[in-house]
Amino acid sequence: MSTDFFKGIEKATYEGPDSTNPMAFHHYNPEEVVMGKTMAEHLRFAIAYWHSFAWEGGDPFGGQTFERPWYPQDDMARAKLKADVAFEMFEILGAPFYCWHDADVRPEQGNFADNLSTLNEMVDYFGEKQEATGINLLWGTANMFSHRRWMSGASTNPDPDVFAFAAATVKSCMDATMKLGGQNYVLWGGREGYETLINTDMGAELDHMGRFLNMVVEYKHKIGFKGQILVEPKPQEPSKHQYDYDAATCFGFLQKYGLENEVKLNLEQGHAILAGHSFEHEIATATALGVLGSIDMNRNDYQSGWDTDQFPNNVPEVALCYYHILKDGGFTQGGTNFDAKIRRQSLDAEDLIAAHIGGMDVCARGLKAAAAMIEDGGLEDALKERYAGWETPEAKAMLDSDFDTITQRVLADNVNPAPRSGRQEILENYINRFV
Amino acid sequence: MSTDFFKGIEKATYEGPDSTNPMAFHHYNPEEVVMGKTMAEHLRFAIAYWHSFAWEGGDPFGGQTFERPWYPQDDMARAKLKADVAFEMFEILGAPFYCWHDADVRPEQGNFADNLSTLNEMVDYFGEKQEATGINLLWGTANMFSHRRWMSGASTNPDPDVFAFAAATVKSCMDATMKLGGQNYVLWGGREGYETLINTDMGAELDHMGRFLNMVVEYKHKIGFKGQILVEPKPQEPSKHQYDYDAATCFGFLQKYGLENEVKLNLEQGHAILAGHSFEHEIATATALGVLGSIDMNRNDYQSGWDTDQFPNNVPEVALCYYHILKDGGFTQGGTNFDAKIRRQSLDAEDLIAAHIGGMDVCARGLKAAAAMIEDGGLEDALKERYAGWETPEAKAMLDSDFDTITQRVLADNVNPAPRSGRQEILENYINRFV
Amino acid sequence: MSTDFFKGIEKATYEGPDSTNPMAFHHYNPEEVVMGKTMAEHLRFAIAYWHSFAWEGGDPFGGQTFERPWYPQDDMARAKLKADVAFEMFEILGAPFYCWHDADVRPEQGNFADNLSTLNEMVDYFGEKQEATGINLLWGTANMFSHRRWMSGASTNPDPDVFAFAAATVKSCMDATMKLGGQNYVLWGGREGYETLINTDMGAELDHMGRFLNMVVEYKHKIGFKGQILVEPKPQEPSKHQYDYDAATCFGFLQKYGLENEVKLNLEQGHAILAGHSFEHEIATATALGVLGSIDMNRNDYQSGWDTDQFPNNVPEVALCYYHILKDGGFTQGGTNFDAKIRRQSLDAEDLIAAHIGGMDVCARGLKAAAAMIEDGGLEDALKERYAGWETPEAKAMLDSDFDTITQRVLADNVNPAPRSGRQEILENYINRFV
Amino acid sequence: MSTDFFKGIEKATYEGPDSTNPMAFHHYNPEEVVMGKTMAEHLRFAIAYWHSFAWEGGDPFGGQTFERPWYPQDDMARAKLKADVAFEMFEILGAPFYCWHDADVRPEQGNFADNLSTLNEMVDYFGEKQEATGINLLWGTANMFSHRRWMSGASTNPDPDVFAFAAATVKSCMDATMKLGGQNYVLWGGREGYETLINTDMGAELDHMGRFLNMVVEYKHKIGFKGQILVEPKPQEPSKHQYDYDAATCFGFLQKYGLENEVKLNLEQGHAILAGHSFEHEIATATALGVLGSIDMNRNDYQSGWDTDQFPNNVPEVALCYYHILKDGGFTQGGTNFDAKIRRQSLDAEDLIAAHIGGMDVCARGLKAAAAMIEDGGLEDALKERYAGWETPEAKAMLDSDFDTITQRVLADNVNPAPRSGRQEILENYINRFV
Repeated sequence: MSTDFFKGIEKATYEGPDSTNPMAFHHYNPEEVVMGKTMAEHLRFAIAYWHSFAWEGGDPFGGQTFERPWYPQDDMARAKLKADVAFEMFEILGAPFYCWHDADVRPEQGNFADNLSTLNEMVDYFGEKQEATGINLLWGTANMFSHRRWMSGASTNPDPDVFAFAAATVKSCMDATMKLGGQNYVLWGGREGYETLINTDMGAELDHMGRFLNMVVEYKHKIGFKGQILVEPKPQEPSKHQYDYDAATCFGFLQKYGLENEVKLNLEQGHAILAGHSFEHEIATATALGVLGSIDMNRNDYQSGWDTDQFPNNVPEVALCYYHILKDGGFTQGGTNFDAKIRRQSLDAEDLIAAHIGGMDVCARGLKAAAAMIEDGGLEDALKERYAGWETPEAKAMLDSDFDTITQRVLADNVNPAPRSGRQEILENYINRFV
Repeated sequence: MSTDFFKGIEKATYEGPDSTNPMAFHHYNPEEVVMGKTMAEHLRFAIAYWHSFAWEGGDPFGGQTFERPWYPQDDMARAKLKADVAFEMFEILGAPFYCWHDADVRPEQGNFADNLSTLNEMVDYFGEKQEATGINLLWGTANMFSHRRWMSGASTNPDPDVFAFAAATVKSCMDATMKLGGQNYVLWGGREGYETLINTDMGAELDHMGRFLNMVVEYKHKIGFKGQILVEPKPQEPSKHQYDYDAATCFGFLQKYGLENEVKLNLEQGHAILAGHSFEHEIATATALGVLGSIDMNRNDYQSGWDTDQFPNNVPEVALCYYHILKDGGFTQGGTNFDAKIRRQSLDAEDLIAAHIGGMDVCARGLKAAAAMIEDGGLEDALKERYAGWETPEAKAMLDSDFDTITQRVLADNVNPAPRSGRQEILENYINRFV
Repeated sequence: MSTDFFKGIEKATYEGPDSTNPMAFHHYNPEEVVMGKTMAEHLRFAIAYWHSFAWEGGDPFGGQTFERPWYPQDDMARAKLKADVAFEMFEILGAPFYCWHDADVRPEQGNFADNLSTLNEMVDYFGEKQEATGINLLWGTANMFSHRRWMSGASTNPDPDVFAFAAATVKSCMDATMKLGGQNYVLWGGREGYETLINTDMGAELDHMGRFLNMVVEYKHKIGFKGQILVEPKPQEPSKHQYDYDAATCFGFLQKYGLENEVKLNLEQGHAILAGHSFEHEIATATALGVLGSIDMNRNDYQSGWDTDQFPNNVPEVALCYYHILKDGGFTQGGTNFDAKIRRQSLDAEDLIAAHIGGMDVCARGLKAAAAMIEDGGLEDALKERYAGWETPEAKAMLDSDFDTITQRVLADNVNPAPRSGRQEILENYINRFV
Repeated sequence: MSTDFFKGIEKATYEGPDSTNPMAFHHYNPEEVVMGKTMAEHLRFAIAYWHSFAWEGGDPFGGQTFERPWYPQDDMARAKLKADVAFEMFEILGAPFYCWHDADVRPEQGNFADNLSTLNEMVDYFGEKQEATGINLLWGTANMFSHRRWMSGASTNPDPDVFAFAAATVKSCMDATMKLGGQNYVLWGGREGYETLINTDMGAELDHMGRFLNMVVEYKHKIGFKGQILVEPKPQEPSKHQYDYDAATCFGFLQKYGLENEVKLNLEQGHAILAGHSFEHEIATATALGVLGSIDMNRNDYQSGWDTDQFPNNVPEVALCYYHILKDGGFTQGGTNFDAKIRRQSLDAEDLIAAHIGGMDVCARGLKAAAAMIEDGGLEDALKERYAGWETPEAKAMLDSDFDTITQRVLADNVNPAPRSGRQEILENYINRFV
């Protein structure tokens, strides 16, 4: 290793479920084959640059708690040191991918030209590291919410010059993503929403956001970027309301602006919870609508009303998520990005590594349980049996008919259906055999 | 009056804000002209049959508290007595409209043919009363959630026979609505959703619901019904998740099934709150998307996680709702339906009347405040000023251009926009001048 | 068996984790010894009469879905049939205990004398069944929330005659509980709270409730009842606010009325969630305050704002609950009551049995994981190490000193403590080794 | 004025409800007499130093938006400039009081001795300004949550040296408060709670917090401080759980540590909302328990799960709060502190002033409505009538009796109370006459 930051921490290896070594994998065995693919190929883990390297431990009531050799983050030399440490962590974890915002990787320069130049310098630096390590970029994205210029939105800003700055910024990040072989490009609209309706023209803002996203797609095709374009739903925070509220809302937005075949979703557990949904729901909705792209794995505290971005630790919940992903065919270009941060009291380098190991293990257990359920087939069989009536020719014909025709049959046959048990608890017990 | 139920209660009249008479209007003056129309024409109040006449005061932990001469509700003679009392209340309140579900007005017979026959008998009875009183039907709807046959959904039921029963039921209610001159037909899918994803085929259920709603529209055109078809968003309860979650979700659904020009929304305050939105948000969203149809006025307790359906009593909140409705041009076929119930401890006939009077007064104050804000123009002027940049030819040209073009300008001109104040508090204070 | 209700369902037996039999225990092995006691002795399972036998499947938007031979529940012969079925279920499950409200077991008669007489008749009937089966009463309680007389509260009712009726009712239920050898008596104040503050004298109501609970304790001592008196916190529903909001609130109430050494708490998972807490939090709070009595095991849907009373199915969460219970010494007179109901779509007798089997298995897994963590000692060791500083004589002396003394030392020694990692993720991973 | 910050902004004066001047009071008329006291005497407005002068506009997803001449806040000269501007604002608003944390007024020095010295220097500076302006300190408090030393709590920290640092800090702030004539001393325990139970010894932490608060009271008496000692409930944020959860929880805590007669509560609207309560509820609870001390007036967005600290703008809600305060006798040493911040998009000096003017006007309207309701007496009369039964000798005797005696009467007299209407809607309408 070239830095001291993780001194004394070895590359994490798989030691099996009985190991008591907190720095080893107990369940994630990258080469182990599950349903015809290795776990690494299924899960496609990525590490988020922002939480582990750019966030300093602050919260709304307190400032920096971490002490890192790459602070303060206002200097290119320290930006490179940060990158050195980051890649060391990716290697310790055996993570095949990582993800970044432009603002995570280069210091904020205060104007576009200088931001562009430092971003490009870092992209070259990442390119060398990727080549040296075989680690790849799952996705890039632009941070258009932290600097004060974005306070009233990026593409939805009342000031068209901010839209312009956003366009230039996204172009630069798409270029960087493409150069680094990124497999997706993500847009999270943290301030694309409103703080209060009384100063907001929602119709105009949605139109601007729709046009902006169309420009993204046009630019993708122009440069020949082969990655997926993904939007990331979140209901609120920092905005009081965000337009990309949840999967269903995004789907409506994409259709309105003609993008439902061009753009997919990057779903996050914590954002699902904040929107009043389970993560399972968001994934099932996206797969039902054909727009699942990738996931941000983390967990939101169920009692906190803000984005806690904790590492996942509940295997039964994670298993249901991967169940829907596997049913949908699994990830193609998407993956499992840990949009998760250690608590601000978890000060040590060891915490950073152990947290990711734990999260990867939880995902591995979830994946294996999901695969076992699919291979066993019990849930799918129950589903088929429950909806079997719809497979009859009569039912299909009914869907092609009309109210008059149906009513005649109801009256003629005195159709009076008897309810059948939904068997929820029996199915819940079934799942508990696997998780 | 033909019944004794409201004995001693006179027709409510407008006595002005200084009156201390709890059974008089203090603000709702039906003939008073506001922005060119009478208050009656703007507000188009309707009374909900279900809460005031069919609900017996039960909640999940207790049964009937009310004692009404039309209980038990299993008999046609008492169904007609209930109708007599209902129309007496509409007249006391001077409400121009009412709304019903089929199950509110006729006893449940256990099969479709008998339900149809009793419904039709009641429709004739209502027709006579409408003619005698001049009171009209704002909308009809089918209750497809109370009887056990609907326990797993209506159009989304795993059993196609339930879909058939639902189709026949909706046809019968659309026929009844048309016969009574109803101005809208509403569908609220209380059990069109899921209790658990593990026994649910969401994709199939959405397709069935989409086909069903298309059948509704086809039938509307076939019979020449001129009313609006409205769906009513609600996120959950009774279902754990309902597909018509909120305005934005419904808009996505309507587009997916090609219905965005045929179907609009009936929005409810309480359902907005349960979905994590303000009512103002839902109305503003629907107007931005062009799908506002009508509203169910009520209020949800902010600390309760279920549908409390209380009468509105917060003028500042109600004023913002009517502000967006007036900006959208006001109601055409829609109106203000009180989907509100007195508390189960409010036992007396007087409570029923006073609650509606209070709600109508709150709406009247809200309407007048909204109209005054529109006539003053302060909010709209502030909005125009805030977005003025988008009116320039350069901004419009930018929207028609692309990322490369925009980036060139950002670099060439060193575009570096300075944030401007959003002035939220100043605008909030402005509003407080009117409410 | 004397009834047909569970025809074809055998007594559930332990078949081990690899069994695929949905009607067998996979983890709950009553005689298996864990930390020196059998699982049966640790868990002390009880079945709730109300959810499984009195509730008919209704919810706020729909009525009865279940069809049971003991419906309608207005007749003593059917009340006894219900009891026969109930005891058959207890035996199928091998549950050592059950719990009831008076209103679950006898028809409502409309006046106290008749309610008393039918209750006593049922108590005799239960007494015979208990003797025949060896099944015992974990606790009895009075339903003072369903009948309309309780609509404005029981002991907190504005009408003192309702207080009187409540006193007589609780006396009758305490007598019944004692006669049946019940090990606890529980009070859940579903309507001891308010619907609106504007018609409520909170100070007077709290005083009346405090006096009532003192009367309970006085009566306990008078009759020599050896069971625990327990109050059950819940924040709201049916009331908008309930005075027994959560564990900490109850503790304040008990102290105010001098009852903190006489009354303990019966904590419920679903009520914890509704109060904005984890169940783990409520249990840890009660053990820290010395007032844990017993638990109602169930689970609340995290996205629903009402009491869903589902069967537990998340082992990691349940394990943390039993961890705190075991640390507190385990149950003495309390136990694990399934205050859980099958979904209203779960129509069949098989659902009722399978749901309980699944819940008992989840608790068994939780218990075993908790015991393993305690025996391993990793969490406790980490806790001791984290707080080790407080074991020094200097720290203890500081607690006995004052601000001046401490400040002198801070200044003299330039006390400037360096933060240490809280190691949350490492500990979460540790727990995941056991669950 | 000595600074340019508010250049062009005049002292705000009362212009009456018809004024359209956004920088004038429309309702707050300090000298106007309401129920025998001036509005200034009733409301006792205070300005919070932290939100208006120390907060830089950051949120969890973005940094500083404001640009102030006293940034960066790491220097004593700029700390004094900040104080100059602050007192100018107090004078523009005619606010009689202000409040501070130590960390708001002096730069963080990194050790106790230097913090003490700079605090004392600022106290002298404030003393001069108070004398010159007649503006007084409503309360002082210590910020024991922002610096990383507090990350795991202050008095509840696992490290006793942090307890020591906290003790010295609170002593210094109490000394400062006393020197400046402060009328209260407040403790808000933002990190006195836990992030996870798995590394927390709740019992020990509560004991340490209880001992700490006793030391505060002991020190108060030692130095002869005549102000109230207040704790401020909040359920969570920054901690996942805070021990001072809500009013009822604090009351339990105070009793456990023998402090219920020494310590009162400083209640905040936003904290009430986060705890699942209305502000009205928290105030009514505190007055019922005899522990209301002072209030932090603000408003939390009902759809946001974090502390939004907005300015109040809903008169009907504020009126109910002052109704309970007036019923309790009004403030003695407490007051109305605006713990409210302008939105981070509200960049201008004008926003800061207008926001406070609007908030003061809303409180003034609320106060006047509350006073009118009290003078009218309608609510109180309804309350007396509803509880009249408890005034009879029989009811009082019943409270002194026991279950046996009461049961005999229930049986003998066939006590069978008939429910009476709670008249909630009629009372809500009554209130709407005043707000």
